[in-house]
Amino acid sequence: MSKTFEKLQPLLEKSMALQTARNLFEWDDQTSAPFEAAEYTSKVIGILSDEYMKSMINDDVRKLLKKLQEEKEQEELTSTQKAIVKELAKTYEQLESIPPEEYREFNEYASIANRKWSKAKKDNKYEDYAPYLKKIIEYKKKFAGYRVRNNKNPYEVLLGDYDECFMIKELDIFFEKVKNEIIPLLKDVAKKAETIDKNYNYLSYDVAKQKEFCRFLAGYVGFDFNRGVIAESAHPFTMQLHNHDVRITDRYLENNLESAMFSIIHESGHAIYEMNIEDAITQTLVGGGASMGMHESQSRFYENVLGRSVEFWEPIYDKLVSTYPENLTGITLDHFIKGINKAAPNLIRTEADELSYCIHIIIRYEVEKMIFNDEVDIEELPKVWNQKYQEYMGITPTTDAEGILQDTHWSYGEFGYFPSYAIGTAVASQIFACMKEKMPVDQYLKEGNLTPIREFLRDNIHKYGAVKNTNQILKDVCGEEFNADYYVAYLKEKYEKLYNL
Amino acid sequence: MSKTFEKLQPLLEKSMALQTARNLFEWDDQTSAPFEAAEYTSKVIGILSDEYMKSMINDDVRKLLKKLQEEKEQEELTSTQKAIVKELAKTYEQLESIPPEEYREFNEYASIANRKWSKAKKDNKYEDYAPYLKKIIEYKKKFAGYRVRNNKNPYEVLLGDYDECFMIKELDIFFEKVKNEIIPLLKDVAKKAETIDKNYNYLSYDVAKQKEFCRFLAGYVGFDFNRGVIAESAHPFTMQLHNHDVRITDRYLENNLESAMFSIIHESGHAIYEMNIEDAITQTLVGGGASMGMHESQSRFYENVLGRSVEFWEPIYDKLVSTYPENLTGITLDHFIKGINKAAPNLIRTEADELSYCIHIIIRYEVEKMIFNDEVDIEELPKVWNQKYQEYMGITPTTDAEGILQDTHWSYGEFGYFPSYAIGTAVASQIFACMKEKMPVDQYLKEGNLTPIREFLRDNIHKYGAVKNTNQILKDVCGEEFNADYYVAYLKEKYEKLYNL
Repeated sequence: MSKTFEKLQPLLEKSMALQTARNLFEWDDQTSAPFEAAEYTSKVIGILSDEYMKSMINDDVRKLLKKLQEEKEQEELTSTQKAIVKELAKTYEQLESIPPEEYREFNEYASIANRKWSKAKKDNKYEDYAPYLKKIIEYKKKFAGYRVRNNKNPYEVLLGDYDECFMIKELDIFFEKVKNEIIPLLKDVAKKAETIDKNYNYLSYDVAKQKEFCRFLAGYVGFDFNRGVIAESAHPFTMQLHNHDVRITDRYLENNLESAMFSIIHESGHAIYEMNIEDAITQTLVGGGASMGMHESQSRFYENVLGRSVEFWEPIYDKLVSTYPENLTGITLDHFIKGINKAAPNLIRTEADELSYCIHIIIRYEVEKMIFNDEVDIEELPKVWNQKYQEYMGITPTTDAEGILQDTHWSYGEFGYFPSYAIGTAVASQIFACMKEKMPVDQYLKEGNLTPIREFLRDNIHKYGAVKNTNQILKDVCGEEFNADYYVAYLKEKYEKLYNL
Repeated sequence: MSKTFEKLQPLLEKSMALQTARNLFEWDDQTSAPFEAAEYTSKVIGILSDEYMKSMINDDVRKLLKKLQEEKEQEELTSTQKAIVKELAKTYEQLESIPPEEYREFNEYASIANRKWSKAKKDNKYEDYAPYLKKIIEYKKKFAGYRVRNNKNPYEVLLGDYDECFMIKELDIFFEKVKNEIIPLLKDVAKKAETIDKNYNYLSYDVAKQKEFCRFLAGYVGFDFNRGVIAESAHPFTMQLHNHDVRITDRYLENNLESAMFSIIHESGHAIYEMNIEDAITQTLVGGGASMGMHESQSRFYENVLGRSVEFWEPIYDKLVSTYPENLTGITLDHFIKGINKAAPNLIRTEADELSYCIHIIIRYEVEKMIFNDEVDIEELPKVWNQKYQEYMGITPTTDAEGILQDTHWSYGEFGYFPSYAIGTAVASQIFACMKEKMPVDQYLKEGNLTPIREFLRDNIHKYGAVKNTNQILKDVCGEEFNADYYVAYLKEKYEKLYNL
């Protein structure tokens, strides 16, 4: 055991405890806190956040980190400890490059910009928001500029923060494939979109019954109720305190059968990941998922790859019908499967179907690249946005609220984040392909036995937390690094069959 | 503004933030956390507790405190600041007198003793617990010994930690009065206990309807749902994060109408106190109630003094009957009032009625005094306990589980705490008496208008938090310090009428 690492451990444990407290406040704020709590609670959270920063960035930790990066010290470390040191170095690189004063200034500005965005979206007035967005972009360019090494594009710095395996080169290859293959497919589908009748989905579905059925679904896919709870919130999300306490939320709409069901499967996918990270690394810097993309791959694997397949529903569709006989008697399993996979060009990312989802991401990625290459005026962004929707989807937003103003991310400076969603969805297909080579996945699903699937994911992905990165995981489990061909093949096969193309 | 105090403020704010985080974990643990969370979450809470201690007890704070205690500095302080400094000094006196190693040792031992108590109660084996209780008492004597000044009894040190206004002298006077007047009254009541029929209370009461009615009751007495929430837990409790976020819980028993209703009124009383503490002092050392006794006075004022009066129920009893017509049609308001005030000698403190409650406390107080005066062997405690129950209540526990083992307090060293319950209940009567001189309380109750009552409590008690102590509050609002005569008079009048004595 490295003595230097032993000294570091209690310091990092303190950071993790403070972060866990912040996470609990976040969870509580979204699920339980009373209406007027926000102002005073924000002060508390602000102080805890400062303490978190101080516990992470200080001379004691810095000295130990520096020592642990020396070759001789590295030799004494286990692979997990090496990963923790690497993660810590990344945090230092990210945070120490920016003068603290500027960073504080930016954070304050971002919260203003976020409010301005919210108001502008409501009022459908991009011009009210544009100056704030412009300044946020200036901050991000400046901050990325501090960290640019080896002639990299500043945008690469931001991308690297979310997944070191996906830089501009990798994303360009990935997205080019998708554009070439999926855009024509989406256009074919668009012509036949109305052949699938989905009216049944929008009848009245008792919310109490939805809650009960969603609880059943969570348990069915492997959410462990001894290690987690389900609550309600305005937007579904997952929050982990540690691997024995992972919480998810759902939102229930009376006139939409699908919404809550697929949200709960999605969040359960995130939760199963966190619940299966090894005890030894929970509450460490590598105690979460490998990357945001890898996390999203698990939620989408459960939601889309498994959850929208006929094999998944075969053993449980009768239960759904008997929960709502008044609405679903007469809707066959085949009809239902067509319904939950119905696709068509659309304007809103968060409501997009599986086929068009990636196109939404590509548009954002291309716009972000233009921004960081100084190829577009901020005032012109709505025009560029709308042109791309017209070109790729064949439809144009009629308002900025359903166009460039729809996402909150940019308002608080989250550039480079969107690609993770697409990476996740593609990784899910790749894992599915190699899983099918190793076990009879369809048969397990038909038998209602999801345990071997969960165990495969646990043993090959989940348990490692962030000790391995996305490509290391893919290489070890599939024998090759990220390859978008699986994703394209998956979508083509699925949608050509669904629409008889 | 005192410059020294200005320097202290951010240091204390940090402590308060850490304490608030701990409170949130506590709340969450009792209301939401999944079953397996405990082990890892305990580690997190342990780290946060250490940080809390470090943030409070350190050289920076110590130096500022010392300076602020100087006469010249005191002159520059507002009364609130003086109260904060006094509170801080008290914390230092409590914590710095004990060698940290011994304090840690004790805490570890207390958690073992608490588990032993729990097991012994279940097994009804006092002898298994006695050696642990003995050692806990030794610790407490030693710790109190470090702090004894001016020939005080060590027990006084412990009493003073809960309420500086109630030392042995005051409590002896108080309890002597109660014994002289209430024990004979209780004996008279015992003879007529069966004249009141209360069977209706134990019929089947739908839990969903109970929840709805309890929510109504909370709002009715003044619980502000914009600043608080209600959840469920095994034992009802109140938890404040700050004055805009005060949470209460309730427990619902299908075969007991009263239980959840009076618990919610009781906890609402605590919550109303916390919600009405001024913004300026929330999240400071004087941002909670004046003392545990004062807090209990407010919960018992709402629960017993108001909540068990005929005037309180007059405007809302019909609503209760129409919630459960199958059980309550035919039970008149008069019958119901007799039911909720039914009293009789009994063995279990937490289930005691208003009349006998104080006797339970007196017994504990007398036993605690004997312990700290070295007048009793720990092995002999059950005998002493049972003799006192026989003498004061006229009944004897048949097992130690329903005798000396019933309370958890001693197992983790909480000696000197019990009197607060009695102080609270007596203070409630005193406040009621002086409130009635200043406003038509009964009329307000009959009109269903509790606002003037709440405003009176807010303006005279709640808003001050812990800036004033119990006697200062009583003096300012009632014109005299604590006086148990009001309590004795209140109980005599109430129960003589109820039982036609």
